[in-house]
This record gives sequence, structure tokens and C-alpha cells, in this order.
Amino acid sequence: MSLLPQLKRRHFLIGSAGGLVGAAAGLPAMAQEGAALPDYVAWKDADDLIVHSMQTLETRRGAIGSGLVTPSEDLYIRNNLPAPPEEIVADRDAWEIAIEGVAEPQTMTLGALKTLGVETVACVLQCSGNGRAFFDHETSGTQWSVGAAGNVIWTGVPVRDLVAAMGGVSDGMDWMTGTGGEEIPDGVPAETIQVERSVPRAAMEQAILAWDMNGTALPLAHGGPLRLVIPGYYGVNNVKYLKRLAFTAQESPSKIQQTGYRVRPVGEKGDPSQPSMFEMSVKSWITGPLEEAGTGKVQIHGVAMGGTAALEKVEVSVDGGANWTVAQFLGPDMGPYAWRPFVLITELGQGTHMLASRASTVDGQVQPEMFEPNERGYGHNGWHDHAVDLTVG
Amino acid sequence: MSLLPQLKRRHFLIGSAGGLVGAAAGLPAMAQEGAALPDYVAWKDADDLIVHSMQTLETRRGAIGSGLVTPSEDLYIRNNLPAPPEEIVADRDAWEIAIEGVAEPQTMTLGALKTLGVETVACVLQCSGNGRAFFDHETSGTQWSVGAAGNVIWTGVPVRDLVAAMGGVSDGMDWMTGTGGEEIPDGVPAETIQVERSVPRAAMEQAILAWDMNGTALPLAHGGPLRLVIPGYYGVNNVKYLKRLAFTAQESPSKIQQTGYRVRPVGEKGDPSQPSMFEMSVKSWITGPLEEAGTGKVQIHGVAMGGTAALEKVEVSVDGGANWTVAQFLGPDMGPYAWRPFVLITELGQGTHMLASRASTVDGQVQPEMFEPNERGYGHNGWHDHAVDLTVG
Repeated sequence: MSLLPQLKRRHFLIGSAGGLVGAAAGLPAMAQEGAALPDYVAWKDADDLIVHSMQTLETRRGAIGSGLVTPSEDLYIRNNLPAPPEEIVADRDAWEIAIEGVAEPQTMTLGALKTLGVETVACVLQCSGNGRAFFDHETSGTQWSVGAAGNVIWTGVPVRDLVAAMGGVSDGMDWMTGTGGEEIPDGVPAETIQVERSVPRAAMEQAILAWDMNGTALPLAHGGPLRLVIPGYYGVNNVKYLKRLAFTAQESPSKIQQTGYRVRPVGEKGDPSQPSMFEMSVKSWITGPLEEAGTGKVQIHGVAMGGTAALEKVEVSVDGGANWTVAQFLGPDMGPYAWRPFVLITELGQGTHMLASRASTVDGQVQPEMFEPNERGYGHNGWHDHAVDLTVG
Repeated sequence: MSLLPQLKRRHFLIGSAGGLVGAAAGLPAMAQEGAALPDYVAWKDADDLIVHSMQTLETRRGAIGSGLVTPSEDLYIRNNLPAPPEEIVADRDAWEIAIEGVAEPQTMTLGALKTLGVETVACVLQCSGNGRAFFDHETSGTQWSVGAAGNVIWTGVPVRDLVAAMGGVSDGMDWMTGTGGEEIPDGVPAETIQVERSVPRAAMEQAILAWDMNGTALPLAHGGPLRLVIPGYYGVNNVKYLKRLAFTAQESPSKIQQTGYRVRPVGEKGDPSQPSMFEMSVKSWITGPLEEAGTGKVQIHGVAMGGTAALEKVEVSVDGGANWTVAQFLGPDMGPYAWRPFVLITELGQGTHMLASRASTVDGQVQPEMFEPNERGYGHNGWHDHAVDLTVG
């Protein structure tokens, strides 16, 4: 395969309104078109995924379509560490988790957790760096376009039920801290690589400990047998292979908490005084058509999310933002943390059209046109960079 | 594999409260445990399916779990005729469909259909014979237990938009008739085997012509490139490979309409005066645990559907129907035609418990205890036969 068609295809996949901006931002040295899937996710749909690296796989923009739920085979992968061995899902109900910072702390099996309560929630899972490829400045980290996100159905025990069964949260514990079960190699100080994240305690109201994803037992690659799922929060907070859930007075001392996932100006280092990647923002993007279309009526579709609030509307522009039309939501509303597919059927003349979408929430948040650059390229939700150039004719 | 373990496992899968009733009803001469999937559905999940025949595959009771949406890999298959060749999904937008019985009849491509309107709906797809294995009398036809049903997300054009674009339905056309695109062998009179079904015209209000299932292009095995989907109606009315949608003065002359899918007393032949398998009924069934459980608290889960009306509640009994407790619905309500997973966490002592579920709709329909036998074993929704014997200890 020659490089040229790869780049060309990438450009279209990214669909940047700014022409080659996406590709110029260092895109695809690693990203491989049609690359084989790593063994641990061999069950995924290779046609619908971009393999950035062994630990980072992105859903293709076109594959997102107007899907209400992201099939597990298409869901992105972003692992901070290699997954634990397959053995941990051999006897799922035997998995143990320590609950701390409550009146009656205890270590429980997953089997026992299942008797405390259960809830099913649909929510967007999205990497903090989704949209990183759209920034102009050079960023390290995976050059995600739009596909480090999916709408997923999770089933598990509500953390509030768990806490109630253990006498409530202890006084002064302002943080909810989840610790992942990835193996830490001998000689490596745990806090330098361990996936341990703290979120404000209030997040426990919507958090669940999930054992099931999209109706089947949570795959190892997505954090099975047990994952902390915090609807409305960026992916990194949704700790996989959860082995400890602790209510703590301080944020975790782990690097991933203290200096990682901190939003700061370009060129600055991360530190705990900066905002952490907790709650997600209102966002939307078009998923089709992405390249070319015939003249006449065309169905423009995409997905929109409110972050932590329900969506009010999504508007679509076919002229780069000069005029906007309210699009139609597609399918049932699955709650404030889920995404909603949308569609606008409209007529387009010959030429190139810049298709953009802009979502708003019921509490007045609106997707901005531009998004301020930040060192690590987190949280991009600017509608201009997410627009698509469509050639009709 | 010896016959004995097969039968034993089948018995548990069926979970008939009546002991060997299910197995005695002629169950598994054809059904094969672990049988290889036919080539045309090689992409499905063999572990979650029971292969009754080349054209009939059932989702295992345990695999249904508390899934909000049935993964395509797990969805049952029931084909009246072999599927057309794979070529018909090579260029999906080129598929042609004739629309008749409207003011301005025309033949359109699927690509053109997509510009007329679009809607996404979640609804139960269920074979008329789902539950046939629970009848005591001998029935021909596939011995489905509970797994000839799934909750599916469909995207397509609303029939009402299509009709509006063509000037409305012509006078006197009381039926909406869909014709499937399966090949009819030379020399066989079409009406003897063609899949052509008529439903009352009013069903057009919720019907769509679907090109997408569970977020991806509709697989050939499920009727791609285009399928008539009538939320609330039994599976047979959801005509696959739809090549003609006609508003007609009379019901189709096809055998499948005239004498097939007619509800009549045991021993009688089908005729057009008998009720046809149109609208589905309120129904629920437990999907776990199915065989054994430890003492202490247990999570009893299952799925419930209202048929054509929204569910009001599901009750669960752990003593064969003597006492009932309202169960908790799990996850978002996806509309009146979708199913809702439910759960009840309760404590069970040692011994064998008969677990039953009973659903009710907002318009007062309640799942009956017993269901009157009928010649072809259609429409069973009696809660007693759907109950499960669970041994605790």
C-alpha cells in the first residue's frame, strides 16, 4: 500500500474543514489502514477500526453512522497499561474488590456485589484526547479524530447502593478513588504507572461498578470482569479491572492523577492545581456523508452528546456556519449521559460544502466554534474543526 | 456427544416448570447442541445459539440475560425460504422497490428512499411460534422455547413519509402488503411459497422500511438490503428483501397469508376466516438463573414486552405464582414496542423454587397463567409454562 492513498483517505476520514490541518498535525505515522488487530482484540471488527498502536484503536468516523448504541466490535480501545491476563475473566464472580473509606469497609467478590443492587445505564465513553488530531500545535499522544468515543450500555451495581450497604461514606472523604488491577512490574514504583483515578465524591450518585457491557459479560479488553463507570466523565476515570474503590480525603498520589490529564496552556507541565479531565462537554460531529455525494437530496447524519446534561437540540450547517437548521433526533432518548444520533435531509448543489454540527444542552451549554489549544490536546469540542468538506456533483 | 446430556441440557435451557413437558413435546431431534452455524450466518455467536435447522436458529435463554438490545450475533433466525444470493447487498443503494396502491405509484431505489425520511425505532422481533415447545400437544414447526425473540434497533424510512411523498394511499386499499425478494424456483406457483404478507393498513403508522439494524447495514440473513419492519407485529409480517410494498383491497393470495399463520383449534386446518398472527401480546420470561444457585440473595432477571402497548410493570414469583413482587425495570425505556429487562434481588432458601414472571401493560393487558392450545402452537404467553425450576443449595 502506498503512502499517498493512505494520507488521502485519512484526510477524508478526519474530514477536517481546515483541509490538511488534521494530517499536518502529525497524524498517521503510526495509524495503519487495514492493519491487523492485536490478538487481545482479535474479536473486533477490523474494517471499522483504525489501529493507532497495540493499545489504541479508533472507530472510523463513517462506521459510527447514526448508531444508537456502539457495537462492542466497533468500540475504541485506549489502554494505559497492558491488560491483565485472561485468567481474571475465567471465574468472574470470584473477582475481589476492596471497598474502603466507608463505615464498614470490606473486600467483596463480584458475585456478592451482584446481590446489592443493579442498574443499567447508557452513556458515552470518550477518551480525554478525542479530537486531538484537530489541534494545530504538536501534541504527543494518540492522534484521535472523532472515534475515541462510543455510546455504550452498562449494567452493574450503583455505587450508592454499595455505600448504603456499608454504612455510608466516612467523614471528610471528598474523593472517590478507583484502582485498576493491571500488573505493576517489579521494581517500578506503583504511583508512576498505576491507573488510579480520583473524582469528586458527588460522582458516586451516578457511578456504577459494571460487569456487563452491551448485554454481555464485560470483555477483558474493556475492563472485565469489573469496571468503574462514571456516566458523564471522561474515559480515564472509568477504571478497568477495578480492584479497589476507596473514598479518600485526598486525590490519588498516582502520576495519572497528579500531573496526567491536566488541562494547561501549550508548553506547560502538568500539576495538581490545573483542571483535571473529569466531566465531559457538549459535543457533536457529523459521521456521513464524509467525502462525496450526488446532487439532490442528501441525508446528513451524526451523533451528539450533552456531556452531563440532556441535549436540547443539534443544528446543522451546510455552509460553514453561516446558517443553521435544527436537525431531527433519531431513535429513543436513552438518558442524559447517552448520545443521540441526528439527521438532516436537505438538498445540496454542485460544489464543495462545509458541513458542521452544533449541539446545545437543556441547561444552556452550546458547542463553541473554536476551542482553545491546550498542551495535551484534551477536550476538543469546537464545531469548526469537527466539520466535514463534502464534494457534491 | 451422547443423547442423554443433550436432553438434560435442553431440559434446563427450556426451564419448563412442568418438568419434562418441553422435551417430551418432540424437542430435540433436530436441535443440536454446539452444532456448527450454517455458512450464511457464520458471523453469529455459536455459543449463544441453538441450531434447530439451516433456517432456524434460536437464542439461548441464558444468553438473553438482561440485555437491553439483542446483539446481532445473538439474534434468532427464522427464514421461510433460503436467502437470496449475497450479490443483492453488494450495492445496497441500487436495490429497487415498487410502491403500489398509492396516488403516484413508482419504483424507487433504496438510495432514493433514504432521502424521503428516516426514523430509528427499538422493537421486539419475535417469531409467531416462539414458545411452541411449551405446548403439550404435538406441533409441527420449530420447537422454539423463548429465544425466537430479540430487541432490535432499526433505522429506515417511515412508511407514512413514503406514502405522503406519493400522494397518499388510494381509496379502498385496506391492507398493506409486503412482498419478499426470495427466488421462486421455476415451475413452482409463486403463491404457494412466496413470502408475501398483508397487515391492516393502520399498521403503516408505525411501520418503517429498514436498511440498518443495530447500527450497521442490515445483514442479508436478516433481510438486507431492505426489510419491512412493523413494530408490535409478529416476525412473519416483517418481510425481508422487500421488493414491493403495495396498498391492496384484499389480503395477499399467498399461502403464507391465506392459510398459514392462522390461529385455530388443535386438529383444524388453516383458513382465511381465522385470526392471523398480527399484533403481539404482553409477555415476559426469566432468563436467569436457570438451573442452580447458591443460598442467600440471588438476582432474578429476565425481559418483558408489552406487544403493542407500553409496559406498566412486571411481577416475579418465587413460589410458582402464590405470591408476586413487583420487579425493577433495568435501563432506559426505549418505547412501547421495545422490551424491558427486569430484575428482582431476593433471598432464596434451600430447595427447588418455581420462578415465574408476569407482565402487565398500561392499557390493562396482563399475561395469563395458562394459554389455550392451538394447532400450530402460535403466540404462547402463559406465565406458568414459561416458569423456571431453580434448585438452591
